[in-house]
Amino acid sequence: MAELARLSLNTATVRLRWDLPACIEGCARHGIGWIGPWRDALADYGVARAARHLRDAGLSVSGLCRGGWWTARTLAEAIDDNRRAIDEAAAIGARCLVIVNGGLPEGSRDLAAARALCLEGLAAVLPHARAAGVPLALEPLHPMTCADRSVLATTAQALDWCDALGPGIGLALDVYHVWWDPALPAEIARARGRILGFHVCDWLRETRDLLTDRGMMGDGVIDIAALRAAVDAAGYAGPIEVEIFSSRDWWTRDPDEVLDVMKQRFERCV
Amino acid sequence: MAELARLSLNTATVRLRWDLPACIEGCARHGIGWIGPWRDALADYGVARAARHLRDAGLSVSGLCRGGWWTARTLAEAIDDNRRAIDEAAAIGARCLVIVNGGLPEGSRDLAAARALCLEGLAAVLPHARAAGVPLALEPLHPMTCADRSVLATTAQALDWCDALGPGIGLALDVYHVWWDPALPAEIARARGRILGFHVCDWLRETRDLLTDRGMMGDGVIDIAALRAAVDAAGYAGPIEVEIFSSRDWWTRDPDEVLDVMKQRFERCV
Repeated sequence: MAELARLSLNTATVRLRWDLPACIEGCARHGIGWIGPWRDALADYGVARAARHLRDAGLSVSGLCRGGWWTARTLAEAIDDNRRAIDEAAAIGARCLVIVNGGLPEGSRDLAAARALCLEGLAAVLPHARAAGVPLALEPLHPMTCADRSVLATTAQALDWCDALGPGIGLALDVYHVWWDPALPAEIARARGRILGFHVCDWLRETRDLLTDRGMMGDGVIDIAALRAAVDAAGYAGPIEVEIFSSRDWWTRDPDEVLDVMKQRFERCV
Repeated sequence: MAELARLSLNTATVRLRWDLPACIEGCARHGIGWIGPWRDALADYGVARAARHLRDAGLSVSGLCRGGWWTARTLAEAIDDNRRAIDEAAAIGARCLVIVNGGLPEGSRDLAAARALCLEGLAAVLPHARAAGVPLALEPLHPMTCADRSVLATTAQALDWCDALGPGIGLALDVYHVWWDPALPAEIARARGRILGFHVCDWLRETRDLLTDRGMMGDGVIDIAALRAAVDAAGYAGPIEVEIFSSRDWWTRDPDEVLDVMKQRFERCV
């Protein structure tokens, strides 16, 4: 099992009830040493204030969610916004900027063109990321999000993009998005030295929604500990974020209860 | 565009309103030369009666849905049932038996074991399929069904299983299940000579349900004509089934209207 010292709270897990300062206080209160904030919450609080608060609370930042979205606006707008995201990640000392690349442009059926657009955007901001010392963490999302959220759909494809783009870019692997992939063991081994983040939650057997019906570790079908061991064996020893989108369950609960359960399940299932 | 002579009605498209004899009459009335029936409807009608009715109506059977489900019962039960399915497919002259392999066994998180179980079941029934002259068509389902319906999740994996199992087995490719896959162009080329069926519908950008929210061709984001051309270029010249699970739209409509629209869209989008 993974050591509790690696646990990170991705703030999406309690997003409906806690703003960023409440998340920081909550982590401190529960003895959680890592946090993975979202940009909207960071903007609400203010980057400088957040950076100070994080430092005062003794929290480290596993990753900032999220850059990317190359296909949902003009490429120039996306590039500008991603440069700002890199600066924000640097300001709060995030280990990486998590990249969700975006789906098909509205009205398009051309997957190859959408994928080429993502690569163009990534190549454009990568020098800025390198200069800022903020690696970009490509997150392949579940293929069920290919139309509207991520044309980057597999670990193999993410590694192909890393190969094409050179240093300063790697992977954020979320068990929810990749657990089904028959190529996963081989691709995790191939990812050695390029795993920048590892996210956990669980796939519920009776999933009712494509976005917001994720489970707490142990409530679903993913062999999380086996995937964590594989990622560790590929050289990853960093923080492990718990990121749960759950409109019918965890988002409705008292966040202090969520953090208690999260810690227990982390020790038992991760 | 594909010739209308290749159009096949998968009976699931009108399953709530038409039984098998109504589907046969409907195809005849609409000038559709192919049909892809389901086993439950076939059992309700009776295999011998159905075979006679199909022959009298001049209909050919693109495939029987479906065998498989290795993981949802004891392997012995699954093998017996699949042998019966092969016999039924032979009795109605089906070009293939479509195989949906099943998800993780209840309570299991062991994907590798579930996949091994599927291979064991397939190997056990393959001699019977060869003897009956009914090829088995492995259908990789969308990764969002991996927990509860199909641990066979990609075209590459289906071809690996074909390689392992030898003659008498191939693929049923459904654009809905495979369109997102960055490896798809290469895998379709690799599938040359092993494509036994091709199914179409569409992925709706705002998909609300993981099973029954599929779209009519042209209403979603899949470049169906491009995939059909790729499959043709890999040597497939057989029937093309329209299979739409749609609880909020097409299942609620008059099936004669559904068939009219289906024919128009087939000519425009496939």
